[in-house]
Amino acid sequence: MKKISILLGILISVGVSLIVNADSKVDELKVVASIRDEALKSELAYDILESLTTEVGHRMAGTPQDALAVKWAVDKFKKLGFDKVWTEPVTFKTWVRKAESAEVTAPYQHSLKVTALGFSIPTSKQGLEAEVVHFRTLEDLIASPQNSAQGKIVFISRKMQRFRSGKGYGPAVKARGNGAVQAALKGAVAVVIRSIGTDSHRLPHTGMMHYKKGVTKIPAAAISNPDADLLVRIFERKKTVKMKLQLNSHDGPEYTSQNVIAEMTGSVWPNEKVVIGGHLDSWDLGTGAVDDGAGVAITMAAAKLIGKSQYRPKRTIRVVLWANEEQGLVGAKAYAKKHKEDLANHVTGAESDFGAGKIYAFASNVAENNLPVVKKMAKLMKPLGIEYIDNQSGPGPDLIPMYQLGMSVFSLRQDGTDYFDLHHTADDTLDKVDPESLAQNVAAYVVFAYVAANSEQKISR
Amino acid sequence: MKKISILLGILISVGVSLIVNADSKVDELKVVASIRDEALKSELAYDILESLTTEVGHRMAGTPQDALAVKWAVDKFKKLGFDKVWTEPVTFKTWVRKAESAEVTAPYQHSLKVTALGFSIPTSKQGLEAEVVHFRTLEDLIASPQNSAQGKIVFISRKMQRFRSGKGYGPAVKARGNGAVQAALKGAVAVVIRSIGTDSHRLPHTGMMHYKKGVTKIPAAAISNPDADLLVRIFERKKTVKMKLQLNSHDGPEYTSQNVIAEMTGSVWPNEKVVIGGHLDSWDLGTGAVDDGAGVAITMAAAKLIGKSQYRPKRTIRVVLWANEEQGLVGAKAYAKKHKEDLANHVTGAESDFGAGKIYAFASNVAENNLPVVKKMAKLMKPLGIEYIDNQSGPGPDLIPMYQLGMSVFSLRQDGTDYFDLHHTADDTLDKVDPESLAQNVAAYVVFAYVAANSEQKISR
Repeated sequence: MKKISILLGILISVGVSLIVNADSKVDELKVVASIRDEALKSELAYDILESLTTEVGHRMAGTPQDALAVKWAVDKFKKLGFDKVWTEPVTFKTWVRKAESAEVTAPYQHSLKVTALGFSIPTSKQGLEAEVVHFRTLEDLIASPQNSAQGKIVFISRKMQRFRSGKGYGPAVKARGNGAVQAALKGAVAVVIRSIGTDSHRLPHTGMMHYKKGVTKIPAAAISNPDADLLVRIFERKKTVKMKLQLNSHDGPEYTSQNVIAEMTGSVWPNEKVVIGGHLDSWDLGTGAVDDGAGVAITMAAAKLIGKSQYRPKRTIRVVLWANEEQGLVGAKAYAKKHKEDLANHVTGAESDFGAGKIYAFASNVAENNLPVVKKMAKLMKPLGIEYIDNQSGPGPDLIPMYQLGMSVFSLRQDGTDYFDLHHTADDTLDKVDPESLAQNVAAYVVFAYVAANSEQKISR
Repeated sequence: MKKISILLGILISVGVSLIVNADSKVDELKVVASIRDEALKSELAYDILESLTTEVGHRMAGTPQDALAVKWAVDKFKKLGFDKVWTEPVTFKTWVRKAESAEVTAPYQHSLKVTALGFSIPTSKQGLEAEVVHFRTLEDLIASPQNSAQGKIVFISRKMQRFRSGKGYGPAVKARGNGAVQAALKGAVAVVIRSIGTDSHRLPHTGMMHYKKGVTKIPAAAISNPDADLLVRIFERKKTVKMKLQLNSHDGPEYTSQNVIAEMTGSVWPNEKVVIGGHLDSWDLGTGAVDDGAGVAITMAAAKLIGKSQYRPKRTIRVVLWANEEQGLVGAKAYAKKHKEDLANHVTGAESDFGAGKIYAFASNVAENNLPVVKKMAKLMKPLGIEYIDNQSGPGPDLIPMYQLGMSVFSLRQDGTDYFDLHHTADDTLDKVDPESLAQNVAAYVVFAYVAANSEQKISR
C-alpha cells in the first residue's frame, strides 16, 4: 500500500507536463526495457491483489460482493491515476448458493465434501437419497443403455490430467458441462462428478453446468477428489452404493453489474487502443486470487507503470475488467456488442485469465505484415524467459467476442501446472500467489502493451 | 485384498506345524532380514489402511463409527490369523460435533472455514457476534492487561513451524490447549485460533482444548490457515474487526469403547511380550489415514509378517489398538491400569503415531546392558536408511502410562515434514499415504519387534 502512495505522490508532484511522446528521438527498446525492469521489481500488482482479496473477497456475479468489487475497481483505477475511468452495464440472470451436503449412506457411512455446480436446480429441501451408478467417463455414460441410470444418481469419476498448458481441462470439463443432460437422458435423478481439478484436497471445484431444452433438469454437484477416490474404492467392493444429496441453491433475480474500464490515453492516436484486462467476477468459494484477481492486478499494474512513464506510447492502453465471465462471458459479450462499431480502433489485445504462474511463452494472431512488431516484443520478452510460439494464437476468454468480430489478439501463456489445484475452489486465496511470478507477468504485459500501442504500424488481423 | 487372501491361504495350507522356534541353529540376522525385505515388498499395510479408511472412515471416540472400527479391528485380526484377539473396555465422556460456522462481518464480509475444538462448549444456537481482538501469541495474550479482551473474541494468529521431527507442534499447540482459559481470564466471550498445522489449505485443524476449574468456559474454534492470513491482513487496516461465530457442538453421554488387542504368541516365553500398535480412534473431519490409520496398519502388518514366519520369535508380539487417544489417552490409561501387575512381562514397546512418512532414525530407552540388542537392531535397520540416535527415547503417546510405570520403550522416528499439513483435518485421507513409505515402516517394525521379542536377554529399563 505504501508503494502505491509513493507512486501517486510522484505522479502528482511531477505532473502531466513531463509526459512526452515516445517519438523517434527516443530509443523505444530502452524505454520499454526500463519499464519492464521496473515492473519486475514492483510490488504494485501484489498490492492490488492483496487489496481486492482482503477488502472485497469473492465477487460472484450478482451477489452484494459483485457490487463491492465494481466500486473497488473504480476507486482503485482513480487512485492509481488513470486518465479515464468508467463503467458499462451488464445484465444477467443470477444463481444463489445455499446449503449443500452429501453423504454415502450404503454400504458404509461417509460424509462427502460437495459443492453445487453453477445454475444447478435444487434437490427438494430435505435432499434426495438414491442408489449411485458409476461411470468412468461422460463417454461411458453416453454409450450406456437406455435407462442405465433410471432413478439413480450418476457418478462420473474421470480424473483431470495435470499439464503446464492446462490442456487437461478441456477433456475433463465436459462431464461438468454436459453431465446433467446426459445423466437425465438415462433416467438419473441427479449427477455427481469428480471435481474438475488436479489437486488432492477435500475442497470441491464448482463451475458452470448446462441444461438442454426438452431434457429433464436434474441437480448437479461435484465432490472433492479424495472423496471421488473413496467412492471409486467403495464401488470396487461390488456392493450397492447409496448417496444422500442435498443442494438448496437456486436461480435468483436478474441483476445488472458493470464492466469497469479505464485508460491511459495515447499520446498520438488516443482513439486507437490496446486492450488488456481480466475478469472482475469470481466464483464464491474462495477469494478469487488466481481466478481472476491475478489477471485484474497484472493488467492494472502494467497499464499504470506504462502510464506513469514520461514516454507515453502513441496509442491508448485500455484496461477492461469484465463482469461475469464465470457464468458465460456475459460482460465480454456486452462489451463486444457496445463497441463493435469501434472495432477498427481496437488494434489488438490480450486477457490475463490463467492464474499467477510465470509466463513462459507468447503467441500472436495478427496480419503477416505486423510480424516485425511481434519480433520486437519477442526481443524484449526474452530476458523474462518468454519464447515466441507462432502467429496462431486464440484469444483469452473475454476477448472471444471481439476476436470473432475480427480483432487481432495475443496470448501470454502462463505456467498453469498448479492452476487447476485451485480453480473454482475455496483454496483460491492470496497465499497461493508468488509475488515474483506476478511481477514477471506485469513485466510481460508492459512489453506487449507498450510495443503494440507505440508501433508506427497499426496492428490488425 | 487379494494379497491378504493369498497370505491366509499359505498360512492355512502350511499350518502351524511348520512353525519352529528361532533357536541357536538358525541365523537370526538372516531370518529378520528376510522378513524385513518381504515387508518392503508387501502391500499388506496399505491394504489394511485402505480397508479401514474405506469401510469405516473416521472413528471419533464415542461415535457409531467408533463401534464400527472396533468390530473392523477384531475381524481384521482374526482374518489375518492372529493367535489371540480380544477387547478391553474403555469408558469416557463424549463430545458431539454439530454445525459450525464463522464469518467476518466488519469491516469486510468474509466467510471463514472454521472447526470447533474438541470439548468446546457451544455458542448460543444462533451464534454470537463480537469485536475481535488480535494477539500474535498465547504469551502476548497472557501478558496483556486485565480485561484486554472484555466482551470480545480473542484471535491468536501464531504460525506453526514446519520441521521433519514435528518439533514445531509443541510451542504452537499451547494456543489450542490453553487459549480458552487465558482468553476467558481477560474477559473474552470466545477464542478463535489459527489452525495448529503447517499447510495453506482452507481446511481447519481440530484437536483438544481444555477448561480450568473456576475459569469461565468460552467457545473455542480454529480457522484455516489462509483464513488466519486474511484476518491478519484485515487487522493491518487498523479498523474494528467483527466476527460472527456459531458452534453447536456439545458434550454427549458417557460411552464405552474398546482397546482391541491381538497377539502372535511367542515360542519360548509366551507371557513376555513386545507391544506395538497405534490408536484406533481418529478425529472426525477426515478418515484418519495418517492419524492414526497408518500406525494401526503398520503394526498389524508387521506382527502378521512375523507371525507367519516359520521362525516364530521367543516372546509374544502384542498389537494394541488403543481406544480414544485423541481426547486424552483414555485407552492408554485404561490399558496401564489393567496391565500394571503384568508390567514385568511388558519387556518393551513402540507406538506408531506420526503418520506414514519414512522412518529415518530410532532411539531406545532400555537398561545399559541391553544395548547389544539395540546394536543388532541398528545393523538390521541400516539398510532401511534408519540411523540409531541414542538411549534417551521417550514413548509414543499411548505408551506414556506404561512408560511412567517403568516399561522400556523405543521410538521409531518418522519423517513428519508433511504430517501437520493433514493432522486433524478433513484432508487426512488415504491418497496422502505413499505405499512405499508405509512398507518401509512395516519393515522397521519387523526388525524392532522381532529382535526385541527374540533376544536371549530380556529387555528392561
